[in-house]
Amino acid sequence: MAAERRRVVVVGGGFGGLAVAKGLRRAECDVTLVDRQNYHLFQPLAYQVATGALSAPEIATPLRRILRRQRNARVLMASVTAIDLERRQVRLDGLANGANGVLLDYDELVVAGGSAYSYFGHDSWAPYAPELKSLSGALELRTRILSAFEAAEVERDEAARRAWLTFVVVGAGPTGVEMAGQIAELARDVLHRELREVDTRGAEVLLVEAGPRVLSSFPESLSRRAERALAKLGVTVRLDTMVVGVQPGSVSLRGTDGAGEEVPARTSVWAAGVTASPLAATLAAAAGLEVDRVGRLTVEPDLTLPGHPEAHALGDMVAVRDGSGGTLALPGVAPVAIQQGRYTARVIRGGSSGPFRYRDKGNLATIGRSRAVADIKGVRLSGFPAWAIWLAVHITYLIGFENRVLVLTRWAFSYVTRNRGARLIDRTEL
Amino acid sequence: MAAERRRVVVVGGGFGGLAVAKGLRRAECDVTLVDRQNYHLFQPLAYQVATGALSAPEIATPLRRILRRQRNARVLMASVTAIDLERRQVRLDGLANGANGVLLDYDELVVAGGSAYSYFGHDSWAPYAPELKSLSGALELRTRILSAFEAAEVERDEAARRAWLTFVVVGAGPTGVEMAGQIAELARDVLHRELREVDTRGAEVLLVEAGPRVLSSFPESLSRRAERALAKLGVTVRLDTMVVGVQPGSVSLRGTDGAGEEVPARTSVWAAGVTASPLAATLAAAAGLEVDRVGRLTVEPDLTLPGHPEAHALGDMVAVRDGSGGTLALPGVAPVAIQQGRYTARVIRGGSSGPFRYRDKGNLATIGRSRAVADIKGVRLSGFPAWAIWLAVHITYLIGFENRVLVLTRWAFSYVTRNRGARLIDRTEL
Repeated sequence: MAAERRRVVVVGGGFGGLAVAKGLRRAECDVTLVDRQNYHLFQPLAYQVATGALSAPEIATPLRRILRRQRNARVLMASVTAIDLERRQVRLDGLANGANGVLLDYDELVVAGGSAYSYFGHDSWAPYAPELKSLSGALELRTRILSAFEAAEVERDEAARRAWLTFVVVGAGPTGVEMAGQIAELARDVLHRELREVDTRGAEVLLVEAGPRVLSSFPESLSRRAERALAKLGVTVRLDTMVVGVQPGSVSLRGTDGAGEEVPARTSVWAAGVTASPLAATLAAAAGLEVDRVGRLTVEPDLTLPGHPEAHALGDMVAVRDGSGGTLALPGVAPVAIQQGRYTARVIRGGSSGPFRYRDKGNLATIGRSRAVADIKGVRLSGFPAWAIWLAVHITYLIGFENRVLVLTRWAFSYVTRNRGARLIDRTEL
Repeated sequence: MAAERRRVVVVGGGFGGLAVAKGLRRAECDVTLVDRQNYHLFQPLAYQVATGALSAPEIATPLRRILRRQRNARVLMASVTAIDLERRQVRLDGLANGANGVLLDYDELVVAGGSAYSYFGHDSWAPYAPELKSLSGALELRTRILSAFEAAEVERDEAARRAWLTFVVVGAGPTGVEMAGQIAELARDVLHRELREVDTRGAEVLLVEAGPRVLSSFPESLSRRAERALAKLGVTVRLDTMVVGVQPGSVSLRGTDGAGEEVPARTSVWAAGVTASPLAATLAAAAGLEVDRVGRLTVEPDLTLPGHPEAHALGDMVAVRDGSGGTLALPGVAPVAIQQGRYTARVIRGGSSGPFRYRDKGNLATIGRSRAVADIKGVRLSGFPAWAIWLAVHITYLIGFENRVLVLTRWAFSYVTRNRGARLIDRTEL
């Protein structure tokens, strides 16, 4: 009788989980990739969907499509709601045929659930300031941002119109900076020529950051350049400022100097604070472990659970133990998840040597048309060269040749016409 | 004091309304285009969104974008809920800023509200068989169709699996024929290579038509050719068959011979029966007129309301009186609405001569890859030549150069790879 093939269950079809599945394509095992969605989302470009620059399908590729030629892989659309490390089973709910409580056996388990934005314990703010990690958040924001300009066009009351034309972006990491820049460009370059009653060049985009500079993961000189680029686009950057309340129609701010302010703004975007996927807590509970302050599970240097060499966890939802009792300082970016996924695939294939090590290839953020900053192994670039690198890297990493061509086509049109082509307002649906 | 410019209010941003607005670009008047949505939908390709061949923004162009250079035109996103022909006012509700009951004065009114599918008085069927006239219907169908295949993949029970793999398309007009062909291709060419547990080539697509042939607006020889092309794709055509019930999980059929049948099918698509937009009834009520059996308003040969030369109505929502006491037999297609829109713009500009006359340039329907039928002024084509014409016409009439390039790119990829690139399942949103 032939030996049974090892069953590898990968939970999560993001950058990490997909890298594991692909890394096992020549391995003697059966891979099951489980995700709640049927697609892999290229999350770094979600903000472009939120501002109408790209359509949702252009950054979301069906997982089945990606793995169609990998005969040892299958895809299951379901939620993982429980994990039993002793019996080596995961529980699946919400299958496409309505089934719940389906148990899936594994020999090796990989959990890569990613992260979500955290509202600093104020989940009641979420309805008034959608986030940008999910496609649904991006589409909701697209509708809100475009509707706000429509509202300004028909609003007669000057103060009310001003609130419709004020956009608050919370958090000045790469996503917040990119989002603020895109809203400013949308107002200045696109809608300015299309609205009749209102001058959208007067729209105010407020980028609120609790820390002392934007893009805190970059060298300080690049933060300053990004701030200047944002100012040129008309974005008002508020540093050392915390959000202490988000209500319908306004955002409450407090400076680190204690001064409070309430900004009338009809549209807010949340791009601050990160919390691990609930799968980290599910896995921690199964192993009798705790999660840290931001919901992450701490894993061994080889990305396995303490005492469970067959259970792997990676990506934004984990902290990785280093040799000296602390944890590695890894940014929550796609390259980390991809490298961890490839590493875990190697470990499962039996070919690993030593602990996971992150090779930092550089840091990129775009601010707008021809504007970006890049920090590549100490080489600091800004302006057009950085923007060209940003563009090349994103096109390269985007999955699927068809999507690459479509996104490049859209960007070429946007560059020349300054249009944003995917500007549907979806009032009740989509 | 200069003479006041005439105020033209156009209700509806479909093919007809847009043609009116554009036809007035050099006229001495102010045009206000009112639509509930912010986009013009290229409805003839909505079925391609429903099957993942195109993304929604590719067939939906912002109305403001289309009219951005036409300085005498503005766009208002709102619903028209009442019309006062005496005071020459329309009432707007649901404006973007939340305002309701806004009154808009006009000197000339054009109502072009289009049509919707009719469930033959059985509105309770609607939730179980979405339609294809709106983007929301198309996106709902995309989710249902793709989810049905996902469900078949995980379903163990053979009968249940068969119901997930059975698709009923009601109505064999161009949209029904195109939809049935696309579902069959999706199953046979795309998902067959991606699903592991189920052979999607065994999927059953049932095209149900109450009449004796498909594409009844075409010459009979082309109907037969279309039926053969559908059969080759694996579509089962059921002629002389009426739908007498749509339930979750099944569709009840009855042949004209009286024989009944209940088909277990989890997914149904509605593409039969047409009813005029409720705006026809709103306008009829304002004029003290009646609507006909399918909700249409009867207008004069110059597309105005009897006794109201300043009130125009056109497109799918009207029947046009002819010289002999009857009405013109016009198909409910885009070219009719476009020609009526251009005609009405001429009438408003004061340059009309004689009644509206439709110039029929031909009739096209596609069945699938390289398969179509065309009836162009008596010249009957099928197969690749008809398909090439179909493609050229649709690319030409699609609005926006960017969308033309994107759609052509997607079609080129689909042609070569047989993929459908825009296959998002949206379980809770979008």
